[in-house]
Amino acid sequence: MLHRSAEREKPVDRVFHALADPNRRVIVERLSRGPATVTELANPLPMSLSAVVQHLRVLQVSGLVRSEKVGRVRTCRIEPAALRPVERWIGARRSSWERRLDSLGEYLAESNDEPKGSKR
Amino acid sequence: MLHRSAEREKPVDRVFHALADPNRRVIVERLSRGPATVTELANPLPMSLSAVVQHLRVLQVSGLVRSEKVGRVRTCRIEPAALRPVERWIGARRSSWERRLDSLGEYLAESNDEPKGSKR
Repeated sequence: MLHRSAEREKPVDRVFHALADPNRRVIVERLSRGPATVTELANPLPMSLSAVVQHLRVLQVSGLVRSEKVGRVRTCRIEPAALRPVERWIGARRSSWERRLDSLGEYLAESNDEPKGSKR
Repeated sequence: MLHRSAEREKPVDRVFHALADPNRRVIVERLSRGPATVTELANPLPMSLSAVVQHLRVLQVSGLVRSEKVGRVRTCRIEPAALRPVERWIGARRSSWERRLDSLGEYLAESNDEPKGSKR
């Protein structure tokens, strides 16, 4: 297993890392419909319970999931606010790209407006 | 290096995988401001040129980046539409979560409306 220097990572790193695994996204998909126990989360997944617990640990470190143990049952919940760093990152890329297209558009419009006759 | 069965992966898997690496996100950040050569992309990154080329390959497989070689210079561009599967995935989680909060709210409102006196 790859050990990452968690203390140097930013929230956006942890959330992207957490969501990069398809099985962890299945867990988040299930939890976005409501809380679930670890056993309920593990049932549809093709892996051991301890592998599911490992995935849950990554999700908890990212802030996407929190859990609470009552008696012998651990119940997990999603923390949708933790998705925000990823949403912000994508939004920033989109606006950076759109600004670029806008200035390209303005440049092309200005080039078109130039009185061509004046050069003749 | 971990080999993934690329042919079984969905676009959303490839894009999340591509964006999980902070250095690959630096490349996407740079390209969202405009096209760049491989050398320009490699300059700010603390790694060898061949490591950058590997990262670019992952980004190209995900559809986030495309490149074109003219003479000895390869120029890379971003393909912002490739971010959509990730945006859709996050949007679906958010609406699933909000629907859940809505029905919880309705349930609580209905419980409040119940004529308490009738049970006495």
